[in-house]
Amino acid sequence: MSFPFEITARDGGARAGRIFTPRGDIATPAWMPVGTAATVKALTMEQVRETGADIILSNTYHLMLRPGAERVARLGGLHKFSRWSGPILTDSGGFQVWSLADLRKITEEGVRFQSHIDGATHMLTPERAVEIQADLLGSDITMQLDECTDYPVPEEAAAASMRMSARWGERCKTAFGTRDAQALFGIVQGSVFPELRRESAERLTEIGFDGYAIGGLAVGEGHERMCEVIELTTPFMPVERPRYLMGVGKPVDLIESVARGVDMFDCVLPTRSGRHGQAWFDGGPINLKNARFAEDESPLDEMSACPASRDYSKAYLHHLVRAGEMLGSILLSWHNVHYFQDLMARIRAAIADGTFEQLRAEAEAARAAHAANQA
Amino acid sequence: MSFPFEITARDGGARAGRIFTPRGDIATPAWMPVGTAATVKALTMEQVRETGADIILSNTYHLMLRPGAERVARLGGLHKFSRWSGPILTDSGGFQVWSLADLRKITEEGVRFQSHIDGATHMLTPERAVEIQADLLGSDITMQLDECTDYPVPEEAAAASMRMSARWGERCKTAFGTRDAQALFGIVQGSVFPELRRESAERLTEIGFDGYAIGGLAVGEGHERMCEVIELTTPFMPVERPRYLMGVGKPVDLIESVARGVDMFDCVLPTRSGRHGQAWFDGGPINLKNARFAEDESPLDEMSACPASRDYSKAYLHHLVRAGEMLGSILLSWHNVHYFQDLMARIRAAIADGTFEQLRAEAEAARAAHAANQA
Repeated sequence: MSFPFEITARDGGARAGRIFTPRGDIATPAWMPVGTAATVKALTMEQVRETGADIILSNTYHLMLRPGAERVARLGGLHKFSRWSGPILTDSGGFQVWSLADLRKITEEGVRFQSHIDGATHMLTPERAVEIQADLLGSDITMQLDECTDYPVPEEAAAASMRMSARWGERCKTAFGTRDAQALFGIVQGSVFPELRRESAERLTEIGFDGYAIGGLAVGEGHERMCEVIELTTPFMPVERPRYLMGVGKPVDLIESVARGVDMFDCVLPTRSGRHGQAWFDGGPINLKNARFAEDESPLDEMSACPASRDYSKAYLHHLVRAGEMLGSILLSWHNVHYFQDLMARIRAAIADGTFEQLRAEAEAARAAHAANQA
Repeated sequence: MSFPFEITARDGGARAGRIFTPRGDIATPAWMPVGTAATVKALTMEQVRETGADIILSNTYHLMLRPGAERVARLGGLHKFSRWSGPILTDSGGFQVWSLADLRKITEEGVRFQSHIDGATHMLTPERAVEIQADLLGSDITMQLDECTDYPVPEEAAAASMRMSARWGERCKTAFGTRDAQALFGIVQGSVFPELRRESAERLTEIGFDGYAIGGLAVGEGHERMCEVIELTTPFMPVERPRYLMGVGKPVDLIESVARGVDMFDCVLPTRSGRHGQAWFDGGPINLKNARFAEDESPLDEMSACPASRDYSKAYLHHLVRAGEMLGSILLSWHNVHYFQDLMARIRAAIADGTFEQLRAEAEAARAAHAANQA
């Protein structure tokens, strides 16, 4: 079955709604914290839940290598293993094979690669990707296996790759079959070529998925180009199904993608930035390592509902980051994940209120002020 | 003033009681988590408090180097800076200078050393140690500056060092003066030499401190020798004042020291072990990295009040440790700090009930069983 998806408000191209899953509802536009190895780095699942997250993402590539998909299955599946009781979306592993694995070899059958952990050889086919995600990990939303192409890439190569990804999508659909309480999403590819994006979206729509992702972006094409590709892709994605932009991004990327009709996001940015001493705000990140915070007694955000944002002075965070203390990574990851959830909540409220353009303009002003302040 | 110290129960040489401080009571025997750099590594202060800790220890050496004692003072003192509102005991810095600093030079005046962080030269005198702890950090219990001697050390050298430490203790007492809401502890030295330990305790008692520590142990002399030294030292320490064994230790060390009349402890073991994948129990530590935990669905301690001990499977902890995930360090540090607090609570209850010898025997049996299991 497809999870019901109800669009409750529209404002320009932006849309707000709700995906109903057996493990809980997902308010959209939604941002998913990334729990790569069955943990959102530096946080407990209780902390993640309290930031307002409805759904998290986990990485098939990492979990199939360690602890292994069959092991997770024997331990009762990913929800029980990781103690996240809400919906989980798993990626297919394709992107990480492309970005992390050694010696990968892609054929029509699938992708053969060596683990970056122990060098062992693995084979990921569309069928195996579905088995790992839907059967072994037990994810709520399974992503089709796709091929990620380099950027830039010649149009001919992008076309061939996109068409193979579409064929893989069809094989995933067949392997997935009909399931009571799980969904399968297709992934639109085609690099930055309008006709390829259109063809990809149309092929996938014909196959029929429960949701549609935009893959192959945020790989070096830049914010403007990314927005262009989104803008020319979403019109060809089914309006009644969730649209998911994979691996994106900064607040400005989220806002501009929502403006173009995207409903779901994931990104490691908040947790990775947190581990590197950065705290995110509408305008951009501040680096707590900076000497100007050494005696700044103000918290990151005194009005926040998040303890990490509200209760700790910047001076203390500065000290923790300088001293390399784990608590610095914990608190900044916590703040950042909360900030991103709060941003999505504001986006949803603005769409419902018909004030999305105002939010967009204010965010643009905040970025300009932040840039001026950093200069 | 001296903090009131009430001994409420005795069982053999063991004693249970309560230290009353303006920032809260300390149930004794007490174990203090170590918050070296104004953070108990990997934990929030809320988590530390929930484990049952009444008091934490912070390190003068680390804080004077980073962020700097004057800076902490400008930020409102260590309690406000670190968000620990209960009592804080600070060590004098002497031990860390001995164990961490480069190029230290000890004279009657004090100790000159180079920071292990940036190589800058610092001077720590008895007067400066008191100023840093009591005036700048604002600690509740200030430790006198003492010299830590190597182990083993010739008796003559140990005697000279102990007598200088006693003179430093007197200078600390003078510098400390009379304070309304803060206490000063002396530190008994003398290595493993009975007469020197006795002389040290008597000299310090004559000076008059609010509490008395045993320093210079757990430096390689071994458990048996350490117990011997404690046993021959505590009889010369004032019975009506708290006795604090510095930097110790494993559960067996705590139990055997309590049996010999010790009231307070601190140790980095639980947090350090936690960061290295170990979980502590009465019998000893288990290493979660061990393959036998890979599919062990049981929690560390299903009866525990601590979420880290109760809610996570060993299989998940194993995975986190293997994957080098921060959450593994967090959860194991949390479990360990809770375990040590729970052990102290059981020790206090046993003393009150007159069953301390039974607890001691059960702990010995647990250690034997653990050793047999590991072999």
